[in-house]
Amino acid sequence: MLRQATVALVDDLVNPGCLRHLADACRVVSVGKRGGCASTPQAFIERLLVAEALRGERVVRLKGGDPLVFGRAGEEIAALRAAGIAVEVVPGITAGVAAAASAGVSLTHRNHAPGVVFVTGHRQPGGEAPRWDVLAQSGLTLVVYMGMAETHNIRSGLLAGGLAGDTPVLLVQAASSAGERRVATRLCDLQTAIAAEQLGSPCVMIIGDAMMQVLQDWTPVENPAGVQSATGALGKAA
Amino acid sequence: MLRQATVALVDDLVNPGCLRHLADACRVVSVGKRGGCASTPQAFIERLLVAEALRGERVVRLKGGDPLVFGRAGEEIAALRAAGIAVEVVPGITAGVAAAASAGVSLTHRNHAPGVVFVTGHRQPGGEAPRWDVLAQSGLTLVVYMGMAETHNIRSGLLAGGLAGDTPVLLVQAASSAGERRVATRLCDLQTAIAAEQLGSPCVMIIGDAMMQVLQDWTPVENPAGVQSATGALGKAA
Repeated sequence: MLRQATVALVDDLVNPGCLRHLADACRVVSVGKRGGCASTPQAFIERLLVAEALRGERVVRLKGGDPLVFGRAGEEIAALRAAGIAVEVVPGITAGVAAAASAGVSLTHRNHAPGVVFVTGHRQPGGEAPRWDVLAQSGLTLVVYMGMAETHNIRSGLLAGGLAGDTPVLLVQAASSAGERRVATRLCDLQTAIAAEQLGSPCVMIIGDAMMQVLQDWTPVENPAGVQSATGALGKAA
Repeated sequence: MLRQATVALVDDLVNPGCLRHLADACRVVSVGKRGGCASTPQAFIERLLVAEALRGERVVRLKGGDPLVFGRAGEEIAALRAAGIAVEVVPGITAGVAAAASAGVSLTHRNHAPGVVFVTGHRQPGGEAPRWDVLAQSGLTLVVYMGMAETHNIRSGLLAGGLAGDTPVLLVQAASSAGERRVATRLCDLQTAIAAEQLGSPCVMIIGDAMMQVLQDWTPVENPAGVQSATGALGKAA
């Protein structure tokens, strides 16, 4: 599919190695929403997808992670179908799954959780915030995306919902990238650990007893400020 | 990684095409839990993994879907680490994500759901059933695995928890295989649709307003008994 594309619209979080599979003649358009440049509006991306396809181009839209989990592919698919253009979706590895794989920990260990939740911590414009109190009672492993600006609300909502303060949390910054960093902590220490380890976005938080083994195997290290903490940083997995 | 393996332990649901990447000299052991043969006990698989690795073999464990989502990889990783054996996990595409991709529908469309739940419908021996009443209140898309024997409890639990009877449901049997079948229905009609379409395991149920578009695009067809129903069967996506 990549080899046959004549136009590729590429997000910032796409691994550059993927681009090697495109044909030399393929036109590559960067439409990322991160980084130093101004972000590309979603409506612009949808118009460009449709316009290029109607011109007869074979268009590939490359996203990091999985396009159907927080990827806004639903809106892009709807725009293309409305224009009568056929769409095929190739699934990918969402950041929470990549993070669990590099830590070597199951998201649904049968002794701990009968399932896993992937939820955005970012309140949608005009939308409702996730029901942290309800999720606290689900008994499932919680994987929170885009939550770094909402750690106070997430922590307090989960505690208010009855989740124990000593519930293990695995924080994974830039999962599956060369710069991946992992930190294990507990729910009550969430903000302290993020500050001490200077973690930033993109970062997934994996919350639940399924992370117990990661926390138990954790080696406390001195944090950058020289204060001994109950958390520490691991490098990229071998 | 597949090319370097000297022993491969392979589940039944693994696409046979994957085996083509193994070296000719690699020994392939089928350890599936389905099909006509007696199932392989989990403890046997774990002992075999450890024994072959300790003998110096490079062992690959091939599973369908993602190993960290209902794959029991947690137990296998624990057994290997306890024996001092290094483990690397390669993530995969879990059935719920594959099902959404072939239907071309987002699991987390921002207008419908701030997240998605992957949960087993199968009650663990000695474990607790998922809290369907709680999940009904989560506002998230629900993807239920291994739930075909529990459809009565799932439907009644979700309705009791407040989920509307007309909530859209997408049923996907044998997702991403050559025999994939998709059926759209509503929560209140769940069992009727499964019976009318003669769906069987493995089948994921994707429940939530994010499936609205799939249901709206649905073309009712005559069911096998010749009775007009509100559901219909789609073939494999092109």
